[in-house]
This record gives sequence, structure tokens and C-alpha cells, in this order.
Amino acid sequence: MVSNPRLSKLIASIPQQTAWLLSQPNDIRYFSDFGFLVPTEREALLFVSANHVGLIHATFSPVTGEPGISYYEGCHVTRLTTHLEAIREQSQFSNLLIDADTLFVSEYQILKKIKGLRIANLDHQLIWQFRMIKDEREQELMRQAGQITHQAFQALRPQLKAGMTEIDVKDLLEAKLHQLGSPSTAFPTIVAFGEHSALPHHQPTNKPLETEMSILIDFGATSDGYCADMTRTIWFGKKPAASFLEIESIVKAAYQAVIERMEMKNEDGDGERDGSLQKNGSVKGGDVERRGGRRQLQAKHLDYAARSLITKRGFGHEFIHTTGHGLGLDIHEQPSLNWKNTDPILPGMTLTVEPGIYLEGEFGYRYENTILITEDGGERLS
Amino acid sequence: MVSNPRLSKLIASIPQQTAWLLSQPNDIRYFSDFGFLVPTEREALLFVSANHVGLIHATFSPVTGEPGISYYEGCHVTRLTTHLEAIREQSQFSNLLIDADTLFVSEYQILKKIKGLRIANLDHQLIWQFRMIKDEREQELMRQAGQITHQAFQALRPQLKAGMTEIDVKDLLEAKLHQLGSPSTAFPTIVAFGEHSALPHHQPTNKPLETEMSILIDFGATSDGYCADMTRTIWFGKKPAASFLEIESIVKAAYQAVIERMEMKNEDGDGERDGSLQKNGSVKGGDVERRGGRRQLQAKHLDYAARSLITKRGFGHEFIHTTGHGLGLDIHEQPSLNWKNTDPILPGMTLTVEPGIYLEGEFGYRYENTILITEDGGERLS
Repeated sequence: MVSNPRLSKLIASIPQQTAWLLSQPNDIRYFSDFGFLVPTEREALLFVSANHVGLIHATFSPVTGEPGISYYEGCHVTRLTTHLEAIREQSQFSNLLIDADTLFVSEYQILKKIKGLRIANLDHQLIWQFRMIKDEREQELMRQAGQITHQAFQALRPQLKAGMTEIDVKDLLEAKLHQLGSPSTAFPTIVAFGEHSALPHHQPTNKPLETEMSILIDFGATSDGYCADMTRTIWFGKKPAASFLEIESIVKAAYQAVIERMEMKNEDGDGERDGSLQKNGSVKGGDVERRGGRRQLQAKHLDYAARSLITKRGFGHEFIHTTGHGLGLDIHEQPSLNWKNTDPILPGMTLTVEPGIYLEGEFGYRYENTILITEDGGERLS
Repeated sequence: MVSNPRLSKLIASIPQQTAWLLSQPNDIRYFSDFGFLVPTEREALLFVSANHVGLIHATFSPVTGEPGISYYEGCHVTRLTTHLEAIREQSQFSNLLIDADTLFVSEYQILKKIKGLRIANLDHQLIWQFRMIKDEREQELMRQAGQITHQAFQALRPQLKAGMTEIDVKDLLEAKLHQLGSPSTAFPTIVAFGEHSALPHHQPTNKPLETEMSILIDFGATSDGYCADMTRTIWFGKKPAASFLEIESIVKAAYQAVIERMEMKNEDGDGERDGSLQKNGSVKGGDVERRGGRRQLQAKHLDYAARSLITKRGFGHEFIHTTGHGLGLDIHEQPSLNWKNTDPILPGMTLTVEPGIYLEGEFGYRYENTILITEDGGERLS
């Protein structure tokens, strides 16, 4: 009955007597192809059990009618009891797992009143296990988003002029994204001139661009909901500061070290052992994990590749964030490339690699691309 | 200490030992001027009590530092316990009122574990009592949004051409909104050709425009977050169908009846009594309410003005939605102009007036403006 292979896989994983209630919009989209119109309103809830899939949706939402999904109109909390009765007539579940991070208290209070229903929190990690590995269609959309992002930056660069503000540059870049076919940005665009770039999350201001100044731009296109994420830091002028050139070479080397680490992910042989980063920023060698005689690349190994290089060059304390994160329909997905995450890095994952060094009061330098993990290493998408 | 008069008023209304936890983004924005960057993520929570205001915000959010507000960085649920301890050191509340429609279950579960804290649901109507009446600055922003909306439609109209799709028209209109200074649309733009317009929430498709066809366009600009909402239904061609002209005259008369009802809102004298609409669509006269010898205009009276006219002309069953709704920072606010809502209509409220008639398989006709209620009647903003 169900034709969506993602949904079939999910159904197969759910035991009898149990239903999952999905409320995170991109989870619902992933498993049901439901197209959201209004990101700020509750527009859909998806019940999935072994023998019934019910999608409750807002009256204003267009539904395509996917095979194997029953649709229930009206998403307001006051309709929940009636819909749930109808759904339970189709599927006799007594355990309901909820996504506590995205279900509202008023919805929960309604569910709690239903007799014979045991409610527990769903571990969202179970959902990431599905969503982390992108299928071919998803990879193609991620590739499109990456290409649009790259092209928009190439088109912007020759048009940068002294006197433009950070907001001007943001507007120009977003207009280019739109022209190239991206209906929205993947996240709020960061444009930071000079010392503003020392704050990783700086938001554009009316600060004007001057010659001989650094510019950090962090942005991304979307393609059918899939996100790209790219950062470039460039020098506007002809005489880059010596400190800028030094930091640039370190960050780019750190980025390259991560890419190379991806490429030898199934190798056992270079003799170097991945170290483990301590909370105080120091690096301790050790902890190689093996599976079937081969080392399984983990998220923390990619972080280590970047962090150990930057730390050795003396800027470990100025690399104040993780090395990257998964992305897809959401801009921040699992796995996080942090110093302690042992999640395996597997083909089909899409990740950002984004080492950076931030010198307060001077400037920040970040270099970032969106990468698809392949059998051989990483394919750069942006 | 607190300089924001809205916040001062709210604080004054909260008893000792009680705090309100606001989680709806536009409530937080209204009382704290916090600027949201990412509408799809939990970016802020606002605690308000008689002697302390604490704003918990995401690390990436820029904060302006409003006088009288303490800022707590880190909005993830894992930080909530620590922040709440710090907030309770400043303010010894034991009752916490939550907004159950926008607080997440995971946040609620953390709050429930805190000793000595009684949690209950806040009636959101208490917040609408503040937000329903727009102050002068809000009125000015609503006026700007309305003007941009009007201008965009005027600019679009001569550019409509046969062969354009609904999506083409939507894109062209939204580009005009952007050029005129609206950074986003107030809601997903509706463009519906011919029989598509018989569905009030139709979403744009690739259907091409043909001569001698009706077009319904429902859209709105925003100005600093404040929304406009306007619908126009026009005939593309030179020979409007007789049925189109008939329905147009009825809908416009119904719209005019609502505006006239606003103008006599403080009058007692025309001898006509507002009727009450029954659930089956019939109209029953009666229930005039008086206050100090004068009739207080209520939301249902405005609905009645439109609905009774359309019903008398034989299309009551084809007017399938309410006569309008409040709007402001949110596109749907209180009061709802429905047949049973007794909320008073007061100067400073901003409302849509949007009667419509929908003939399945033929076409729909809706006429809508955004209106500011004044002492004398209604000021058209769009």
C-alpha cells in the first residue's frame, strides 16, 4: 500500500501496539512528502504505526494524497481527540511515543487524557538514523543547492564595492540566490566586515566596506527544501594583512586535513593514530576503534583532524566551535562533528566542514563547504 | 527601570509570587523588542514577574539590551534549569503560568521537576487584551504594510498577460513587494484562476491565464513584522460573465455594509437591531447589548452585517468562512469576526474585512481590506 520507501522502512521498524507521533515539520516531510506552507504554525502531525499511517493537517494545507496515508483535516488542538479516536479505530496501539522537543504542551495535555494510552518520549536519534543517510534524490538536491550557493558567491564577488554596507551585500547576495532558483535561504545570511567577523554569529549591520578590510560571508541556498552551507573569508583590497594571510593558511590547512581524513577513512595503514581532544583543549593520542579489522571513521576523528592542526599552530583557543554538522532538510542535523561524538561517518551523509579562527577585535576567518561522504572520501557540493 | 511601556503595563498586571512564561515569538517580540532571526527554532523564552524580567535567548541571536530586562544566553532545553534557578534568585515566584500552545513538552517536563513551583496554563486571551489594541507606532507600521500591498497590486495589474501561470503571477507580485520594501510576505500568497478561486485556500499552480477568466489574488506585505492582508478578484478580459458581475455586486455590498456598521458603532439611533446568526445559517433578530445607554459594537455585529446581506441575496451557504480577523504581528489575531464572538470592537484594533462567495466548479469572489478601527469608523489601510 505505502509507496514511499522511507515510510515503509519506518513502519517496518515499529512494533505492534506502538505508534510514533511525529511533530517536527521536516520529519513529517521526510516520511510523508507533505508540503508545508507556513513554518510558524502547527500545520501537520503524523501518526505512524505498524498497520496505519495518519496525517493530520491544517485546513489550508494542500495534500497530494500519498498511497497508504490517511488524511485527517484540521490541525487545531481542539480536533486532536476526534482525530485520534478515528486513527485508533484503524490501529489498536496502546503505546504512543511523542517527540517532546516539538510537541506542544496543549497537545500533550489532550493526549494524556485519552484512556488506555501510555505516552513516552521518542528518542529523536532513532529518526536521525533514517535521515542522516541521504538517498540519491536527496544527494542530487543537495548538489543543486551547493551549486547555486557557489554560483551566487562567484557572481557577487566582482560586484563588491567600497561603501556598501553589510546589509547591502546580504541583499545583493540573496537576490542572486533567488535569481539562480533558490526560493529561500537555508539560514540567516551572515556578512561581517573586519572585526565584526570575529563573532561567528554576527548579523549584518550598516557598517560600510572599506578597502583593505576582510569580509566573511556565510550563507546557503535551498533546493526543494534541502540546504547548502558555505563560508568564504576574503580580503577586500590589494594588501592583505600578514596576520590575515597567516590565519588563512592555517584554516585552509585544517580544512584540507579533514578532507584527507575522510579519504583514508577505510584505511588502516598510515601509522598515525587519532587522538582524543580533552575538555581543556589539549590533545591526547589513542582510542583507535576497529571494526572487522578496519578503523571506522567517527565524527570526532574529523573534528580532531582540524582541531589538532589548529592547536599545534597555536590557535586552539581561537577555534571556538565544532568542526561541522550534518545538514539536509534541516540546516543543523546529526552528526555533530564535535570532539567527543563517536557517531560513525558513513557514505551518503552530508556534512559541513568549517574550521575557523577568531581574533577578538581584529577579524575572524572561517572556510566552509558542504560535503557528501562517498565510498572514497568526500564530494564537495558547494 | 523598564522603559518599554507595553512591558510596564504587563508587569503591573502580574501579582506577586507569580511569573508568566511567554513562548510565542510575537508575544516575546511585543513585550521585549527581541528580534527573531529563525522562525522555525526556539530562539527565546520570556519570564515576566512583578519584580524581574528574564529573557532566555539563543546563542546566535543578537540582543539589544533593553532597560529592565536581564538576558540569559542559551535557549536549548538543557540550559533551562540553570537559567530558571538564576531567574528565581531575582524573583521568588511560586506560580508559573505557561503558554501551553507554544511551550514544548520537553521544556514543560524540565519545569515540572523544579521543586516548589506550581505550573498552570495561561489564558492567552489575557495577552490578546494587550496586543489587540495597536498603539500609534504599530498603526503607522500597519499603514505602511497596507500601502505597500496596495501599490504592489496596482503595479502588477497592467503586467498580467495571457499564458502566465498562477505561480508566475505570484512570483511577479512578490518581487514587487520586495522592491517596495517588504522583506517577506505576511502569509503564503494565493493566486487562483477561474474555478481554482472557488477554494478559499488554493495554492498557486501551473494553470495558465486565459482571456475572459477571473483571477483572485490574496496577499500581504509586512513592515517591521506587521502584516497587511488584501484580496482582489478581477476579470481578465473584456466580457465579464454575468454571474461574475452579480456576485461582485453582492460581495462589495456586503463589504460596504460592514464598513457602514463600523461607522455607526457608537450610535443608538437607526432603529435597526443587530440580529444573531444561527448555526444552520439562518438569521434571528434580537440581542442588542447596551453599555451606558449606548450599543457596544461587537465582533459578531460586523459578521452579521456581511452575512445577513449575502444570505438575503441567496448565497448564505456559499459564504463559507468568517467575515474577518484581527491581525498585527501575527496574520491571525483576535478578535475573530465570527457569528458568535461578543468581543467589543474598539478604536486601535486592526481587522480584515473579507466577505466572499464561492461557487464550486465556477469561481470564487472575495474582496478584502485591512481596516484600522477609529473613533468614527474604519480607516482603510490597504
